[in-house]
Order: sequence, then C-alpha cells, then structure tokens
Amino acid sequence: MPIKALALAATAAAATLVSLPAAAQFAKPEDAIKYRQGALFVMGQHFGRIGAMANGRVPFDAKAAQENADTVAALAALPWAGFGPGTDKGAPTKAKPGVWTEQAKFQEHADKFQAEAAKLAAAAKTGSLDNLKAAFGPAANSCKACHDAYRAR
Amino acid sequence: MPIKALALAATAAAATLVSLPAAAQFAKPEDAIKYRQGALFVMGQHFGRIGAMANGRVPFDAKAAQENADTVAALAALPWAGFGPGTDKGAPTKAKPGVWTEQAKFQEHADKFQAEAAKLAAAAKTGSLDNLKAAFGPAANSCKACHDAYRAR
Repeated sequence: MPIKALALAATAAAATLVSLPAAAQFAKPEDAIKYRQGALFVMGQHFGRIGAMANGRVPFDAKAAQENADTVAALAALPWAGFGPGTDKGAPTKAKPGVWTEQAKFQEHADKFQAEAAKLAAAAKTGSLDNLKAAFGPAANSCKACHDAYRAR
Repeated sequence: MPIKALALAATAAAATLVSLPAAAQFAKPEDAIKYRQGALFVMGQHFGRIGAMANGRVPFDAKAAQENADTVAALAALPWAGFGPGTDKGAPTKAKPGVWTEQAKFQEHADKFQAEAAKLAAAAKTGSLDNLKAAFGPAANSCKACHDAYRAR
C-alpha cells in the first residue's frame, strides 16, 4: 500500500475508534463506563506506586518501578474506548460533557498520556531513579491536565 | 546468587505476594476491592469479545482476536493482588470468604487462569479460528471454576 493510502487508512481507523458507537464494543453504556473507570483506577494505582518512589515517599525499587511502569504503559491505550458516543450517562460518572463535545481535544489528551506512559516505561527500564523522576513529572501533568479539563470534582 | 538461594528468594517473593497486607499495596481495603473488580471487569470485556468470535456470534477478525487476547494476558496477573488479607470487606464485593480461608486453592485458580490466558494469546497469534476456539474453552472454564467456587451470585 502506498504511504499516502496507508496514512489515510490509519486516519480512518483512528477516526473509527473515536466515533464507534458504544454498542459496537460494549453491550450497554453502563459497561463502557465501568470499563473506563476500572481501567483508569487500576492504572492510577500502579501510577501512584511509581509516584511514591519518584517523590521519595517509599524507597526506590528499580524492579517494582519497571513492573508498575510496564503495567501503566500496557493499560494506557484502553480507557478511551469507554468514552464513545452515548456513554455520557448510564452509570455514575464524573466525566464532563466536554469529553463528547470536544472529542478531538479529549483525544489529544489521551494520545499525549499514552506517549508519556511509553516514555515513563522506557525511563523505568534504565533502572535510574533520576530518569524515573524526569519522566514521572510530565506523565503526571498529562493525567492532571485531562482531569482538570474533563473530570468533575 | 547461587541457584538454591535464587529459588528461595523467588519462593519468598511469591509467598510475600500472597500474604502481603493490603496496606502495603493499597491505601485502604476499598481501593484493593475497586482494583480487583476493575481489573476483572476490563479483562472480562476483552475476554468476552474473543468468546463472541469463538462462538460465532461475531465474525472472526484475527487482528482483533489477537489484540483482545494480548490485553487479557497482560491483565491476567493483576487482580489477585487485590484479594490480600483484610480485603474481604470495605466496599461491596461478591467475593466469598473462601478466598481468604482457602488461599492456596484460590491461588491455584489464579495461576491456572494465567496459564490459560497465555495459551489463548499464543493461539490468537497463529491467526487460526480453530486454534482460538480450542484455547478459548479451557480459559473460559478456568474463569467459571473460580467464579463458581469463590464468587457469590
């Protein structure tokens, strides 16, 4: 496939991912909401364990840092599929309407976080606490930016 | 480290994993419960998509099957840490007391499932629906056996 066609196909695939009706992937909106909340909560727990090391609250353990960062990176792509059209209600959710009215912006946050999660995993793999700290900050800021914009208190 | 010391260390690490107080990994029992439920729900969604293909309810898509099976395999190790001592209450849970009174048996189920999830991912990687079907059954039975024994209706 020529590069241009490939790029178009990739764009189409990405667009499909964003605009897929929830019904295509989830039996009901409630499932999509539970899915995204579950994925984000599990990810948050592992992310928090890295933060505790990066911030000196618990001793640095290179192996644990790497395992936690690998888990975050593996989960980073998942939650966003749970924010499809029609999943703004159906179960208790703190997601603000902007998730659905500003889909491109929301997706940018999701993409940014995935990139930061990959960098964090690469940093953890070096076994250096300094590298971990350097990658943790931007990743945490990426979480916060999206939460500030799209998650109600 | 000599092999014997390594083996002892590995055994000690595994034992620690099972008997770690919830407080060591989770801030409170509620977090452990939300964590395990989140991980199991997310995994169940991906597992169900493979089942839909294995059972002919949706057309076989080799790439989707592989992605879903990889996600299941990546998540398969996670939920069990959320069943540590003291996490039998603190939030609504269907986990039966046997999880904590029969820890070795429960862990066997968890180990069995992880092995089946790895086999399922390997089967999905072959791109063959027959292989997928052959691996899906035992994996699904492994879910069911543990649910029957340790999850209230």
